[in-house]
Amino acid sequence: MTIDVDETLKRISSKKGVKAVVILNNEGQAIRSTMDHDMTKQYGQLISSLVQQTRTTVATLDDQNELTFMRVRTKKHEIMIAPDHEYLLIVVQNPAEVMQQ
Amino acid sequence: MTIDVDETLKRISSKKGVKAVVILNNEGQAIRSTMDHDMTKQYGQLISSLVQQTRTTVATLDDQNELTFMRVRTKKHEIMIAPDHEYLLIVVQNPAEVMQQ
Repeated sequence: MTIDVDETLKRISSKKGVKAVVILNNEGQAIRSTMDHDMTKQYGQLISSLVQQTRTTVATLDDQNELTFMRVRTKKHEIMIAPDHEYLLIVVQNPAEVMQQ
Repeated sequence: MTIDVDETLKRISSKKGVKAVVILNNEGQAIRSTMDHDMTKQYGQLISSLVQQTRTTVATLDDQNELTFMRVRTKKHEIMIAPDHEYLLIVVQNPAEVMQQ
């Protein structure tokens, strides 16, 4: 799946309730981000590592299965993680605002 | 939050699309499960460890924030994880069946 990263970044970050968008390559390096440098780096490292452990967990439970999406809901917001073979898309949103649409 | 684990197990596992329910105590030991012994043990260990890493990730990104819920979507099903101070509730469901309600 080849995606136009700029178009994806623009489309998603313009949606109501979306606070930040980060797109990583499959080495965990940010190739686009609406966050500052330090936060981008921190999200990139931590979320890549979390996705890796989640992939391993899913495959260990059933080697015919595969991770397709993750939602991490926190007190302050929701982190949506879409892992793909080429990219890792991270969207931070405020679910309350999203629901108001 | 004290929950009646048996009532919770019965209520959730009777919902359409729910394939399995596991309730762990906060040491990661299963106290109720609709799965067999081995799968319960494996889910218990792997999901507890995943929740631990996710909690650390959330707190590292913002020490004023806290994990409240997780959805791990896979090719075959969806694992919903509700971490609480006393219990860890794991529900495995088939999202397609749930949507048909």
